[in-house]
Amino acid sequence: MTVVTEQETIPEESPGGLMAAEIAEQPAVLAALLARTGELSEVAAALRRRSPRFVLITARGTSDHAALYAKYLVEIRRGLPVGLVSPSTMTVYGARPDLADVLFVAVSQSGGSPDLAESLAVARGCGATTVAVTNAGESDLARAAEFSVDLRAGTERAVAATKTYTAELLALYLLLSGADPADAAALPDAAAATLDLGTAAYAAAARYRFASRLVTTGRGYSYPTACEGALKLMETSYLSAHAFSTADLLHGPVAMLDSGVPVIAVISTGRGGQAARPVVDKLCETGADVLEVGDAARPGGLVVVSNGIGEELLPVLEILPLQQLAWRLALDRGGDPDQPRGLSKVTKTR
Amino acid sequence: MTVVTEQETIPEESPGGLMAAEIAEQPAVLAALLARTGELSEVAAALRRRSPRFVLITARGTSDHAALYAKYLVEIRRGLPVGLVSPSTMTVYGARPDLADVLFVAVSQSGGSPDLAESLAVARGCGATTVAVTNAGESDLARAAEFSVDLRAGTERAVAATKTYTAELLALYLLLSGADPADAAALPDAAAATLDLGTAAYAAAARYRFASRLVTTGRGYSYPTACEGALKLMETSYLSAHAFSTADLLHGPVAMLDSGVPVIAVISTGRGGQAARPVVDKLCETGADVLEVGDAARPGGLVVVSNGIGEELLPVLEILPLQQLAWRLALDRGGDPDQPRGLSKVTKTR
Repeated sequence: MTVVTEQETIPEESPGGLMAAEIAEQPAVLAALLARTGELSEVAAALRRRSPRFVLITARGTSDHAALYAKYLVEIRRGLPVGLVSPSTMTVYGARPDLADVLFVAVSQSGGSPDLAESLAVARGCGATTVAVTNAGESDLARAAEFSVDLRAGTERAVAATKTYTAELLALYLLLSGADPADAAALPDAAAATLDLGTAAYAAAARYRFASRLVTTGRGYSYPTACEGALKLMETSYLSAHAFSTADLLHGPVAMLDSGVPVIAVISTGRGGQAARPVVDKLCETGADVLEVGDAARPGGLVVVSNGIGEELLPVLEILPLQQLAWRLALDRGGDPDQPRGLSKVTKTR
Repeated sequence: MTVVTEQETIPEESPGGLMAAEIAEQPAVLAALLARTGELSEVAAALRRRSPRFVLITARGTSDHAALYAKYLVEIRRGLPVGLVSPSTMTVYGARPDLADVLFVAVSQSGGSPDLAESLAVARGCGATTVAVTNAGESDLARAAEFSVDLRAGTERAVAATKTYTAELLALYLLLSGADPADAAALPDAAAATLDLGTAAYAAAARYRFASRLVTTGRGYSYPTACEGALKLMETSYLSAHAFSTADLLHGPVAMLDSGVPVIAVISTGRGGQAARPVVDKLCETGADVLEVGDAARPGGLVVVSNGIGEELLPVLEILPLQQLAWRLALDRGGDPDQPRGLSKVTKTR
């Protein structure tokens, strides 16, 4: 089987073939998830009936950025305070907090990380309502949770996660936002249209061919995108890619920017993008090398086709050109984005 | 006035003179704070009487690492779930969460960042018990809070925060841990003894003279130290210094390590250090360049003198050699750690 990317046909067995295929599958994976809104709405309703006062979310790696997205979503849309769990407090230090009225969400592609399953089991024992979002419905994590959502994105074979990340974002939106699932209906088409602009992302890769470090930035809903984009570049191309909230960027990290470190700024038409715009403009004025990504990207940037999608769903789209950029850059550098060195698909942290 | 550092006398007006003076002041600042345990215990008792069910902490920059420390402290010692606030959800997106039973803590050296004062005021309006920890008791942030703790560390003139960071850690310990303040009595002497070993940190600076990027890592209580150490290096020496939880390090970032990026591993004798040890050993085995920092550092590393201080207070000490390293490295590179380019002391994020 072959997949079509960048007007060429890439066999799956070639370097990057798996990641290219999985990037290309995303519109279909999103559509399949949207076809199950009835099922997800039932879980969402069951979770709402527990009337949680606080939400805790645990995850690692790519899924941690989906967790961060969910933090913004729940705080803004539901008005509930959210904490991102440091699993070690329960697994290494043995904390046993009172978690009555707490909704505890675990997000993991594989469901196979022992410390996540352990912290979820501890949370359940401490009184939390627990829900696992995984791409492995029979995993230890999924079994440990009272509620479980299987993404059914198909096996993810490339080590760098792509389709499970966007599926996690959409599943968390459907579970936790309280929004009408119909608001997400245009998402698969918008994702396909955004991916079709891949040539711009491939061209941008040439710009970073010899970069050893890079900064990504975004504010509000776009901050998780900046974090995940940085991780993709680190995983596949061994760049030191550092994500900063655009608000934090002025606090110290900016000192290293005018020494020539390029910046990728995720910038949307939403309120986060509007708040980030003056900082991004200031960076440009000081001569920083800035590549804008998003539905508010200026000419020369990587445009996201939003099709009228609201700001809270834009992260599903914003990451797509960054996945394409990371994929292409890894190939340009002679690497294999499917099999980065030193990484395995399931990390057995204890 | 001059200060003695590295067996030399450095005038305050020389490059790095302010930061050197403020690093050296830390034992006295800690002792002065411990002399006020009665006052802080009263605030701590008042906060406990509100019986919070959930703690939210907001901060930016260096203070954000003090907030992260407090997260571990409260989750482990008090069994309360903690969330780190993304101020934009309230200031940019207008979220108005239900914060009854919530303790909302703001940490800021200057108390002058408008978005922190705004988010604290919103939190207070939403029903939270609010407390501000600042080095500016008359600041907008301190005035906006129901309870306020003034660190009284003296004006911090160097742009890179040092003494206010360790003072924030100790103040948060005294306010939130529920521990006996007597457990911290040995801290000023331990800090002085650790600073006296500065020669090792200055020697280590030579090792990174030409490094453009670097990774720091730690687990549990030592993770905030890794974050703050990375920020100090970024602020003063323009390194791309990236902090990872030692657990996350295996998830993707490790791919960039065997391409020659040096690692600074903060490793204590406590449970976090024990959990991190196998990962650090694995890094060493694969040929990574690792510098260990902490009371469990092996020979060749930067030793922290703990004087029997418990793991939960070690972060106050662990950061000291990293401050010295950042200071020395900035000077070696011809910079001025007191006045990094592009930075101002108070960041007016909105």
